[in-house]
Amino acid sequence: MTFVDDRSNISDMEKKDKKADIVSIGTHLISRQGYNATGIDAVLKEAGVPKGSFYHYFGSKEEFGLAVIDHFAERYNQRLDTFLNDEEVTPLNRIRNLLESGMARLTQNRCTKGCLIGNLGQELADQNERFRARLEEIFSSWKERYAACLREAQRAGELAPDLDAGVIAGFILSGWEGALLRAKVMKSPQPLRDFIETIFATVLRTQ
Amino acid sequence: MTFVDDRSNISDMEKKDKKADIVSIGTHLISRQGYNATGIDAVLKEAGVPKGSFYHYFGSKEEFGLAVIDHFAERYNQRLDTFLNDEEVTPLNRIRNLLESGMARLTQNRCTKGCLIGNLGQELADQNERFRARLEEIFSSWKERYAACLREAQRAGELAPDLDAGVIAGFILSGWEGALLRAKVMKSPQPLRDFIETIFATVLRTQ
Repeated sequence: MTFVDDRSNISDMEKKDKKADIVSIGTHLISRQGYNATGIDAVLKEAGVPKGSFYHYFGSKEEFGLAVIDHFAERYNQRLDTFLNDEEVTPLNRIRNLLESGMARLTQNRCTKGCLIGNLGQELADQNERFRARLEEIFSSWKERYAACLREAQRAGELAPDLDAGVIAGFILSGWEGALLRAKVMKSPQPLRDFIETIFATVLRTQ
Repeated sequence: MTFVDDRSNISDMEKKDKKADIVSIGTHLISRQGYNATGIDAVLKEAGVPKGSFYHYFGSKEEFGLAVIDHFAERYNQRLDTFLNDEEVTPLNRIRNLLESGMARLTQNRCTKGCLIGNLGQELADQNERFRARLEEIFSSWKERYAACLREAQRAGELAPDLDAGVIAGFILSGWEGALLRAKVMKSPQPLRDFIETIFATVLRTQ
């Protein structure tokens, strides 16, 4: 048995873990307070990382913000996989289950935070082109996943074939973001409930 | 003819004018950058008011922010009056004209700013209860105006009588706010166009 000195590897792994911690804490804080109001120092303090060592992990606050966005998008994609790839239920019910689960989460969070991508879109779309482009990319990928599911619903005869799946997908995406905003301001999940009931009763018709 | 010394009145009027200037400039800056990122100093500088004289006009930054919200709500109410009281067109077309005009404005602003009430709701709903309550009051008053117009559409046989006007009004309000957000992030009015076409083709049905 040979002992290999892999301290450099351990240190790389520790650095990776610490970076993941910083991103995770950053996601939490930015979700609550927004990007501009979240100070690097507060994030480092909560992560137990010495002040001043930030640049070991990120080139700039912008890099850190983009890492937070990617982290959130990755986790949200897992949620999309769970619900939209669920072969146990019909395509329209996959979308319904996704939205119902989103409503349950917001209710659990006492109608705070909402959607990080929507929050940062609101805050940064006019201020920072790099953020705007990345956020738009993510919104657009979500829209595509909804559209694919709606097209499957059309093939299954669950949704009228004359509807434009891309347009309806965009309508669901923006309607949901708006309902999250209203729920946050109202401190009630009612706008989300009304949104779900209304699209299933009117927009997502069979013929 | 008697000359009355009314310098104190002139000074009151000047103060009122200056205060209106500060609020108007504040509305512009907060619409673009948000509340937290808008410094009092920048507003005063643009209004040509000496630094340090802020407290002649407002008790705190919060008071100033609330005055900006009220100013925006007042102007938006005038827009609602113009469109929703327009007896020349049918009730549903009043709503359509209002939304079309909102889309034209956003396009003119090159898809920046969006809705100040939505922006501040996103930014401040979890941070400041006084702001949240005031923003919710305004959203709720808008919803009521939509609902009244939808009920008029129902009486005119333009909208199915079994639809719940209050629910549909909330659906339009949050859908529109979400479409504004998407348009800002996308830098295209397309989400607003899709929203208008979709609700008139599906949600706002005659029977």
